[in-house]
Formats: sequence, C-alpha cells, structure tokens
Amino acid sequence: MSFGFSVTHTDGNARRGILTTPHGTVHTPAFMPVGTRGAVKGITFRDVQDVGAEIILGNTYHLHLRPGDELIARAGGLHAFIGWPRPILTDSGGYQVFSLAAMRKVTEEGVEFRSHLDGALCALSPEGATDVQARLGSDIAMVLDELVGAEDRGSKVEDRSSGFSNLEPRTSNLGARSAMERSVRWARRARRRLLQLREDPAAAAAVHVTNPGQAQFGIIQGGVDPALRTASVQATVEIGFEAYAIGGLSVGEPVDVMYEVVGHTAPQLPAGRPRYLMGTGMPDDLVECVARGIDMFDCVLPTRNARNGQLITRHGVLVIKNAQYAEDRMPPDPDCGCYTCRTFSRAYLRHLFAAGEMTAATLLTVHNLYFYLDLMAKIREAIGFGSFGKPLQEFHQTFSRRPQQP
Amino acid sequence: MSFGFSVTHTDGNARRGILTTPHGTVHTPAFMPVGTRGAVKGITFRDVQDVGAEIILGNTYHLHLRPGDELIARAGGLHAFIGWPRPILTDSGGYQVFSLAAMRKVTEEGVEFRSHLDGALCALSPEGATDVQARLGSDIAMVLDELVGAEDRGSKVEDRSSGFSNLEPRTSNLGARSAMERSVRWARRARRRLLQLREDPAAAAAVHVTNPGQAQFGIIQGGVDPALRTASVQATVEIGFEAYAIGGLSVGEPVDVMYEVVGHTAPQLPAGRPRYLMGTGMPDDLVECVARGIDMFDCVLPTRNARNGQLITRHGVLVIKNAQYAEDRMPPDPDCGCYTCRTFSRAYLRHLFAAGEMTAATLLTVHNLYFYLDLMAKIREAIGFGSFGKPLQEFHQTFSRRPQQP
Repeated sequence: MSFGFSVTHTDGNARRGILTTPHGTVHTPAFMPVGTRGAVKGITFRDVQDVGAEIILGNTYHLHLRPGDELIARAGGLHAFIGWPRPILTDSGGYQVFSLAAMRKVTEEGVEFRSHLDGALCALSPEGATDVQARLGSDIAMVLDELVGAEDRGSKVEDRSSGFSNLEPRTSNLGARSAMERSVRWARRARRRLLQLREDPAAAAAVHVTNPGQAQFGIIQGGVDPALRTASVQATVEIGFEAYAIGGLSVGEPVDVMYEVVGHTAPQLPAGRPRYLMGTGMPDDLVECVARGIDMFDCVLPTRNARNGQLITRHGVLVIKNAQYAEDRMPPDPDCGCYTCRTFSRAYLRHLFAAGEMTAATLLTVHNLYFYLDLMAKIREAIGFGSFGKPLQEFHQTFSRRPQQP
Repeated sequence: MSFGFSVTHTDGNARRGILTTPHGTVHTPAFMPVGTRGAVKGITFRDVQDVGAEIILGNTYHLHLRPGDELIARAGGLHAFIGWPRPILTDSGGYQVFSLAAMRKVTEEGVEFRSHLDGALCALSPEGATDVQARLGSDIAMVLDELVGAEDRGSKVEDRSSGFSNLEPRTSNLGARSAMERSVRWARRARRRLLQLREDPAAAAAVHVTNPGQAQFGIIQGGVDPALRTASVQATVEIGFEAYAIGGLSVGEPVDVMYEVVGHTAPQLPAGRPRYLMGTGMPDDLVECVARGIDMFDCVLPTRNARNGQLITRHGVLVIKNAQYAEDRMPPDPDCGCYTCRTFSRAYLRHLFAAGEMTAATLLTVHNLYFYLDLMAKIREAIGFGSFGKPLQEFHQTFSRRPQQP
C-alpha cells in the first residue's frame, strides 16, 4: 500500500476523504494525537486505538535525541520499535529545535543547537531531517522549515502592511518573508534528498530507510501576510510533494487571524491532496478550519490539558480540581460515550487528581482524546450528509473563541 | 448474594475454592491488587479486570483521610464511588497508622495519630475502624489490630524462647504477646460493633452502612512464637468471624520463619473458611503459602516494583533501565500472554522508562499484575488436577528466596 488520497464528499469548502498510507488508511478530516517520544502521554496504544485514533504523530527532535533514529532503524523503524502498526506522521524536528533547544544558530545550511537533554551540540539540515525521518520510517515525513520570526521572537512591530482584517496590532512581515523564502529553499533540498533515497538503492541502504513508501509533505509559511502565503503556496507546490501543510499558525496570533490565513491559504492548495494544519487547536478551531478546507490536524492540547486536570466537554472546559466537583456524581460529560464518562464520576476523578494518582491523567486523557476523535467522526458524518453547518453552528454556541459579533 | 466460601479441591494442604461476596465471586487461591486510594496505581480498572483480578484491596487509612469515608458513603459506598463493581476488601487502617502516621499514641481505647497529609489529629478505635469500613461498604472488612512491637520497632532481643527452628537471631516475643492479647480484645470490640450495626437499624442508619452484607475477618497475631500464634487462633476463632487472616508477617523476618509461622498457623484455622495472609509477597511466597493452606493474598510488590522499573518474570526480576536492554527486541517475558509482552519490546519499555513517560509504569504494572494473577490461575488449575507439586517445584528452581539446601 502506498500513499494516496481521495475526497469522497464535499460540503462547501469542507471535505471528507480517505488517506492511504503504507500502514493503513485514515478517514479525514482526521485528528492525530501527539506521541512525542513514541508514546501518547498518559495512555497505552490500546486506549489510543479505543478512542478512535487512526494515525499518531511522532516528534523527530525528541526521538532523534533519545533513543536515537539509528537505534530505531535497527529495530525496524518507528512502527516496530513502539508497537503501533498503524499510520504515523513525523514532524521535521524544526519546531522543537526553535522552541526547546538552547543556543540555536540558523544558517542557510540548517540549524545548530544544543540538546535540551544533555547540552550536546547537534545539527539539523533539510537533508538531515529527511534522513532522520527516513530511518524512523514514518508514513508521512515533513520538510524542515524555519519558524517565522524565530530570530526575533516576541517582537511586535506596528506594521500596517498585513492584508488581513482581523490583525490588530499587526506584526512584522519582514521576518516572515525571509523565513518563508528560506523554507522554500530548504523544502527544495529536502525533496531532492527524498527523491535520491527513493531512486538510489545505495543511498537508501546507507541511510537505513525503513519505510520505502514514506510520503513527504511540504509546509506553507508566510506568517499572516496573504501575499507571502500565496507566494509560499506557489513555490512549494511547484517543488511537488505528496501533500501540503500550513505551518506557522497557532503561535500566538489572534484566532480570527488564524482562521483568515487558513481560509486564504487552503483553497489555493491542490484539491486532490490532503491539507494539514499543523499544531491546531481547540475544538472550535477544528470545526472552523475543516470549514475552510483542512483535512488533518494535530495538537497537544487534549493530552496536555488532561494532565493539568482539564476536561474538554461539549459544554466547555471542566477544571476537575475545583471544589465544586467534590461530591458531583455526574460523569465529566453526560453526553460522552468514552470509558471515563461511562464509568467514573467527577467526584472520583477529582479525588484521583487531588491525591496525585497518575490514573487521573490517564482517565482525563482518554476522555479528551475521545472527545476530539468523536468530534472528527461527527464532522465526517455531517459532511457526508451535506449537513456540516450543524456542528459549525453548535460550536459557535458553546465553544467559540471567536469574538462575539455585536 | 452474601458472604460464603466453599473449598472445591484440595492437594495436600493447598486448597482451591470459591468465595462469594455481595459484589460477586472470587476464585481462590486469589491475589488482590492493592488500590490504596481507590485506584490501583498506574492502571485503569479496565486493565485491572483485563489482567484477571476479581477482587481489589482498598486502604481504610488513606480513604478515611481523603476523600473521607463519609463523602464516600454519601456517594453510595466505595464500589459506587470508585466505579469498581466487583469485590473489595478493606484493611482496618491499623497498618498504615503504625507505618505512616506521626506521633501515634496507642492505648487500650485505640490509637491516636497525626495525618501524614496535614498533621490533623485523628483517632482510630476498634469500633471506629469498623464504622469507617461500614461506610466504605467493602465486601470484606478487617478488624483493627495492634502491630507487633509497634512501640519498640526495630529492637532485636536475643531471646531463645521462640519455638521456630529458622529464627536466628530470635526476636523478642514480649511485645508480640501484649500486642496479640490487645488485638484479641480489640477484635472482640470490633465484632460486637459489627453485630450491632447488623442487628440495629438505627445504629446502621446513624453510621451510614452502605453494604449490609459486609463480612468481617479476624486477624491472627503473635509474632514468630508458635504458642502465641496458637493462643491467638483459639481466642480469635472463639469470637467468631466470617473468616481469618494471618497478620504481622512479611515485616522483616527471614522468609523461612514466615513460611514456618504460616505452616504452623493456617492448619489451625477453620477449614471451611478462607485464610488470608496479609501483605505477602514475592511470587515464591504465594506458591509456598498456598502449599501451607492460604487462600488469599495482597501485596504492593507487583505494582510498586513496576513503577520502579522492575518486571517480575518467570525467569526472575528484569530491571528494565539496564543498558543491556537498549536494543533488546524480546518481550519482557517471552512466555507471558499479557498486553505488554504481546505488544512491546524490552528496548521500547526501557526507552519509555528512561524518558520518564508514565506509560512505562502502566505497561510494567500490567505485566506484573498479569504475572501474579496468571500464577494464581495456574496454581488453581494445578490444585484442581492434583498436580500442585509442579508449580511448587518450578518456583524452587527459578524464583526461590529460600536458602539453598546443601
């Protein structure tokens, strides 16, 4: 089985489809639980499967540092090493280098950094990130990209040049342009490297490719400037990847700006290829961005918030440690069909959380992931019936982070 | 369904039987995973059931302090509060008072102590421990007993009065006698209180009894002195309980002494009632003590050792963090049928443990508990076929902590 994608239903800009990978199929729109270090934090793969996940995400940066991609390749690749036989997408490691590693130095060649584990000096280039992921043998590899404004993070410049109506104050697009252009050049090198590994058996053997059917996605950058986003789409699609992701969002910009960038960018991407919005988001973001043509999502939010005691429910976020739940015999979300909601009360979960029992994190993670994956199933069903407006409207009423219209 | 027990097979002193409780039946010899604070550490009840547990143990001391037995009673009792509908045994809280709480003061009335959570002054009497467990509504409650030598722990006196051949140096039996005698007086008070709760609806309502079918086990004390043990059996059986436990062992005495005390005490207990050896132990202890007539066990060892990275296997203890497992693709125990061994390699488990992923604790706990419960199933099967000598012999060869015979 090799990489493939077909759109089976559309409803406005929303699409429902089937993604094929060497390790099985994924129904889209899909949410990918994050399995940073080869495990989805807090739960076993049995539970990951039980909540309905068809694909997980692995973090190249973490796996490269520990236990190491060469060790994983010797074990037969990431699927074999971690015991998850279904589809896996790996990021390029770039995001973690820019957000976790110390003393990073970005040049045209790539990025140098120090491991957050032991301070060891490491380097990641577009070719290197391709090789690491070839050893991991994920079903979908991502190209290395440069984060927008990585060198001058946090600086906000009044700059009225952005074309998006919802951005106020507007951030600089100077860093965005240079990072986008470098990301395109890096994408070209990453693609060239992957094609070499595909076509040259000696190169593949030298690298220890573990999944010859691995697909590679390009990443659209360009910050919040529509012209830069359009330029990035054109240049990246011209290189030619199995599919495309939208990067550089959910990094602090207002939510309406994020929606606007997605709404501007997604329709420009090839209709026959899946579109992956990286690192987003809240449940309403999933609904809103499906409406704008996105097919794939990942986010640490359901798993991380679970470990912090937050249950994401149909009626909003429930902070389980609050005293009000001490004797609350209701399940976290009475409308939910997950193991946690079918079995346990808010009072018991609060007790486990207060007592520091790790099972609290497990049970909250089961619920949050089920909530996300059930939401995606409902979205797919609604698109199939041409009634996607309904979940969209429900989320406007319950969960929306969009500013209320007057 | 009320409390009952029937022995269905015997093989030497080993017995196989069925224990009936208000929340279902338990096949004996049985091992009870420890669920200190209403959760078996590291795994969900779904996994507890999946590894084959039919009954769990809850800790009265911990649940009394947090979330409180009155809160649990208002939730309908411990089964309802924690979402485990099967049998539960609760200890009396005495062991934790003696081992965890600070500034304890033991009098004939009971024990005063300060909570290890917040230093609050608490008291536990034989009647109080009965009431707390009546509110928890476990299927089996234990009487409050005094720990041997609790007031002068750790002191070792050369005292040749012990009748056991394997005890060297011999510990004092003076503390043992007084604690045993007090435990008998306390047991009488605890039984009187339980009978009052059973027979007086007003008393039961005042206490908020949640499980009217609750059974109560007496506890045999007497340290390592056979005469004291015999006296304790006679006095405790005379009071009359649904069944009897052997307490005060696995507290540091040599393993052969423990076996000797069990071998001396168990046959004196009523043959038609289950015999519970408290807080033991290693896998070979289970086999050895079944051979001496024990029907029920509990121990934190499989769950605690799992969290410390120790896998208990047919071939001994495997310390998963050891570097030798970094690239070991074997399952922890190739002969084991548990989820962990069917799915994951030693290398992956080592990686999870090294990375600090909590899933490591979960997967190791699944294995260790499966190992224990599978061992009990094999023991029951062997007793059923009259071939119990086989597991006994196997454990002598692989797992024995008994001193080698010359």
